[in-house]
Amino acid sequence: MLKKVEILSVGTELLMGQIANTNAQFISRRLPEVGLGVFYHSVVGDNPERLTECLHYALSRSDVVITTGGLGPTQDDLTKEVIAKALDLDMILDTKSAQLIKQYFERMGKTMSENNLRQAYFPYGCKILDNDEGTAPGCMIEKDGKVIILLPGPPRELIPMFNKHVIPFFREKCEAPLTSKFLRVVGIGESMVEKKLMSLVDSQTNPTIATYAKDGIVTIRVTAHDEGEIPSSLLVSDMCGKISSILGDSVYTDNDEELEYTVFKLLAENKLTFSCAESCTGGMLAEKITSIPGSSQVFKCAAVTYMTASKTEMLGVDAAVIDKFGVVSKEVALEMVQGMINKSGTDVAVSITGYAGPGFADEPVGKVCIGVCTPDCRTVKEFKFSGNRDRIRTLSVINALDMVRRALLHLDLPD
Amino acid sequence: MLKKVEILSVGTELLMGQIANTNAQFISRRLPEVGLGVFYHSVVGDNPERLTECLHYALSRSDVVITTGGLGPTQDDLTKEVIAKALDLDMILDTKSAQLIKQYFERMGKTMSENNLRQAYFPYGCKILDNDEGTAPGCMIEKDGKVIILLPGPPRELIPMFNKHVIPFFREKCEAPLTSKFLRVVGIGESMVEKKLMSLVDSQTNPTIATYAKDGIVTIRVTAHDEGEIPSSLLVSDMCGKISSILGDSVYTDNDEELEYTVFKLLAENKLTFSCAESCTGGMLAEKITSIPGSSQVFKCAAVTYMTASKTEMLGVDAAVIDKFGVVSKEVALEMVQGMINKSGTDVAVSITGYAGPGFADEPVGKVCIGVCTPDCRTVKEFKFSGNRDRIRTLSVINALDMVRRALLHLDLPD
Repeated sequence: MLKKVEILSVGTELLMGQIANTNAQFISRRLPEVGLGVFYHSVVGDNPERLTECLHYALSRSDVVITTGGLGPTQDDLTKEVIAKALDLDMILDTKSAQLIKQYFERMGKTMSENNLRQAYFPYGCKILDNDEGTAPGCMIEKDGKVIILLPGPPRELIPMFNKHVIPFFREKCEAPLTSKFLRVVGIGESMVEKKLMSLVDSQTNPTIATYAKDGIVTIRVTAHDEGEIPSSLLVSDMCGKISSILGDSVYTDNDEELEYTVFKLLAENKLTFSCAESCTGGMLAEKITSIPGSSQVFKCAAVTYMTASKTEMLGVDAAVIDKFGVVSKEVALEMVQGMINKSGTDVAVSITGYAGPGFADEPVGKVCIGVCTPDCRTVKEFKFSGNRDRIRTLSVINALDMVRRALLHLDLPD
Repeated sequence: MLKKVEILSVGTELLMGQIANTNAQFISRRLPEVGLGVFYHSVVGDNPERLTECLHYALSRSDVVITTGGLGPTQDDLTKEVIAKALDLDMILDTKSAQLIKQYFERMGKTMSENNLRQAYFPYGCKILDNDEGTAPGCMIEKDGKVIILLPGPPRELIPMFNKHVIPFFREKCEAPLTSKFLRVVGIGESMVEKKLMSLVDSQTNPTIATYAKDGIVTIRVTAHDEGEIPSSLLVSDMCGKISSILGDSVYTDNDEELEYTVFKLLAENKLTFSCAESCTGGMLAEKITSIPGSSQVFKCAAVTYMTASKTEMLGVDAAVIDKFGVVSKEVALEMVQGMINKSGTDVAVSITGYAGPGFADEPVGKVCIGVCTPDCRTVKEFKFSGNRDRIRTLSVINALDMVRRALLHLDLPD
């Protein structure tokens, strides 16, 4: 039975520190869904001898070896040839792949070089994995009870190929089919989530529960296999229900989606337009929302009123209110959000004003006030965040999005 | 002589995909400065047997092994103990470290546990590396001609320790002292940079030249060692001069700094205020500028006019111009930037309007128009970018910053 996985990444650019190994991270995060554990990552340069050595070593200690990188058309790209040789397999031309590569170049209006055709040769007997996003197909070799999978290096090619071919392949291999679901939580820290779920986590082994935190969001993975007559999907949805009843409306999705996407969907479903008035976050909230394709459906505009005077000029904030309460205050946040509604005629607006630091002595770094206005409510809240400038800005944006979500769903604000 | 380095990262959180291995990236990028090459990265979980196996394997193929992680106070943190055992070294209490750890807890007003004192035990004969940012010191072992360095996992602890101890240690070991400089280039692709520098790169081995590209910026590292009487610093500055004369004003810094920081400094030196009018980039340019501490010195405000109507409402763009030339046109970019100047009274402004895709059939995805206005010039340029939504937005921001830089320095626009 397949159990231990090693990810073997090939590329001098990794050893030069030009890029971080995000492919290994992506694959590692996904494999537990199909019952596999990643035991080792290795990185080696574009060097035939060292790659051969690393492959043999990986096969000696792991059941599955997934390589990333080195499938392109240049002389440096040698993963497929080296691995075929190490496994004593001939390289065979695949006419269908050759055809696809030719068509790709025709479609792009580019000239194909002989090197590009190298990408249509594959180790004898392998399964070819189409590349919908580029010219380098991947492949999958089963030999002597081991599985070797070769994936391309660029994440925009690797990720769709992994989702389309690798996950279904292992899902079929699984003796006990697995189901996973990802809940996401906003407004509660990871240690508090762990504490609240401790009895659940300790009391059972199927489903398993794993948490991880990033940028103010905690993701909870729930994975189960079939248990006698009970299907894994039922075990997972039952456990997700238990977790949701403990964590309440801090769980914003059971579909592993970004918070801005949840907010975007809520706005779109309700046919509401959205705008924001930012200060310390400097456009970060607008940037997040507009990273979603189709956001023009709901997103109208943003005013980044960074200097104090611009709050008055662009949003009509009363200068006397700023003088009286200070530029980082609930009062100014409310004036900003109301100003945005008045100026833009948007349905929903949010405002952020705060000190992201590193600051002057008289500025309480981390103090952030956020205001939200919807057709049927108006709220404002003061936060005290800790961390560096980037973290304070990120937490401000996450909490602003959460306040919009709660306002749209008529939920109470978190403590 | 020390030459080959392996980075051995210890931590189940890496194998679970909770974090990317940015420590390996950081260390890899820095070691060439002291004449070392990274040949392998490995990652292993918090497991004594597998860590022992990985250490022995690393020592069999590398001269220097740098471990990251597993130095903390919890039961999972076992790197130091396992490596001492593998190298057959006793663990000895270091009274100075014990004292420092006690003081750290007193200063933080926290209670010290017995586990924390485990961090004051070290393999016999090692050099202890102080941790100024946490309680887990690192250490450095020289044995049988090999060097083994143990660093903590959190980057905010690892980076200062690496800079303070590891770089000076190897600089001293270097037979020929090395100097490095990093040039950065905007507006020319990596393959074109390589082509233009090919004769320089091929004709010599001291200095060495390495390039890498990310998000529209190419970084060129120039590293030299002393050559007889000629100091490395002179060799490096001479080579940087040659590169700059070939690449011209596309080289925006010889100090490895971000483009937004170069633009920020130019604005600050000239006491100019800055604002931006964004559309497809959705606030990404404003976000980048305001990521710089102290940006409030120059940055006034931004208008993110995402929906077409908001271009007229917020910036006074003539609706007839939009109708006639289309919302993504040089004419609209000019109206946007002029509108920003008029509305905000800022000294310098930039505007971006474009199609970031994925688009409707009639939208030429990647077409982006950028306008710049300074007290003494006004320019506009149309670009055609390729790639996905994120890449088109990123390239738009980079090129907008470069147009501002060129306008402030009275340089011509690139082709």
